[in-house]
Amino acid sequence: MTLTLFLARGTISMSVHAALEEAGLPHDLNWVDFSKNDQRDPAYLAINPKGRVPTLIAPEGTLTEAGAILQWIATQSPGLMPDDPWQAAKLREVMFYLASTAHVAHAHKMRGHRWADDPAAQAAMTAKVPQTMTDCATWLEDRLSGDWLGAAFSVADLYLWNVALWLPGDNVDMTRFPKLAAHSARVAARPAVARVIALHDG
Amino acid sequence: MTLTLFLARGTISMSVHAALEEAGLPHDLNWVDFSKNDQRDPAYLAINPKGRVPTLIAPEGTLTEAGAILQWIATQSPGLMPDDPWQAAKLREVMFYLASTAHVAHAHKMRGHRWADDPAAQAAMTAKVPQTMTDCATWLEDRLSGDWLGAAFSVADLYLWNVALWLPGDNVDMTRFPKLAAHSARVAARPAVARVIALHDG
Ligand SMILES: N[C@@H](CCC(=O)N[C@@H](CS)C(=O)NCC(=O)O)C(=O)O
Ligand SMILES: N[C@@H](CCC(=O)N[C@@H](CS)C(=O)NCC(=O)O)C(=O)O
Repeated sequence: MTLTLFLARGTISMSVHAALEEAGLPHDLNWVDFSKNDQRDPAYLAINPKGRVPTLIAPEGTLTEAGAILQWIATQSPGLMPDDPWQAAKLREVMFYLASTAHVAHAHKMRGHRWADDPAAQAAMTAKVPQTMTDCATWLEDRLSGDWLGAAFSVADLYLWNVALWLPGDNVDMTRFPKLAAHSARVAARPAVARVIALHDG
Repeated sequence: MTLTLFLARGTISMSVHAALEEAGLPHDLNWVDFSKNDQRDPAYLAINPKGRVPTLIAPEGTLTEAGAILQWIATQSPGLMPDDPWQAAKLREVMFYLASTAHVAHAHKMRGHRWADDPAAQAAMTAKVPQTMTDCATWLEDRLSGDWLGAAFSVADLYLWNVALWLPGDNVDMTRFPKLAAHSARVAARPAVARVIALHDG
């Protein structure tokens, strides 16, 4: 079975891309070019009416939402999510925080039009991003004690790494978050992740 | 083992409350009074520094994020999440959408101060909520075909029901979303959920 991932450079779809590489699952990449507004193309909206990435096409059907795709990949390959229910719950807690709070806070920089029509309101949202993302980094820093979010590496680490990539550009002072910076470097050094970074930077 | 749920009337913590009732798990309720700003009380912030509900205290520790708590409850009691990985993934897709898009869109009505300091910007966010929540209802309506989101009732149905409770107050015309309205009525008619509704209305 071959999977197809719809993705865009530097976006949250990187985490899913990296999970496919970590899992060693054969996959095709279908790049969505945001500079051409490909995500609003009728052909893409027919696949994912939300007009967002990532979208994964599997033999079973179509799946969206980074957090859901990451966890499905972990069901297809061992060792990417813990079996213990509480350990898994604590990782899901981070994943839901990333999805509902940190990613959303970041989106207010460039995508304020989702939530307000007035350009002045959008500018006010952009202005607050360094503060909201610093707050998010504070909560996330507190969640790190060992090398990974859980007892072992998991897809939650890929999700965290992906969102943390945006922090410097959001004017978050990373010297205040040494555990987060070290975690990002640790994830980026994994061979599967390094291959993905090269494809997104290229 | 007894669980303790920190919750507030009418909030997303209702879904977790209902899941505990569905699962038949013994639990204490600790009401957080938003009218008194209890969620910012230092004693509560020591438990959940995010200052939000729900928070669940279990013998294993403290857990936040509605989507993570719902899924953990489903590991403690059979029949609340499907075993099949793809079916579970499709429900997680809805749960991540609810957390990252629908709940967040709703929060822009009253909690715009999270994302912008300017009162005019906050008013602009409030103004757009009927439109963004109508868009969310459109995507959710499309996900419903049978009685439940999946082949059987699951915690994802509780999450959907909880968010859908807010739609009329967000000025969404529910006559446009008959499947969503019927789903909400079906969930509310479950005895465990009816008990929870009575406690929140009381
Ligand atoms: N909750 C979704 C959010 C997906 C999302 O917003 N992706 C962004 C890129 S990071 C996107 O596709 N934006 C395109 C646009 O807003 O037009 C998920 O976690 O997958
Ligand atoms: N992503 C969190 C969001 C929780 C959340 O925002 N809860 C709201 C009630 S629906 C809250 O506690 N608001 C209090 C406040 O903003 O002060 C989750 O899904 O649990």
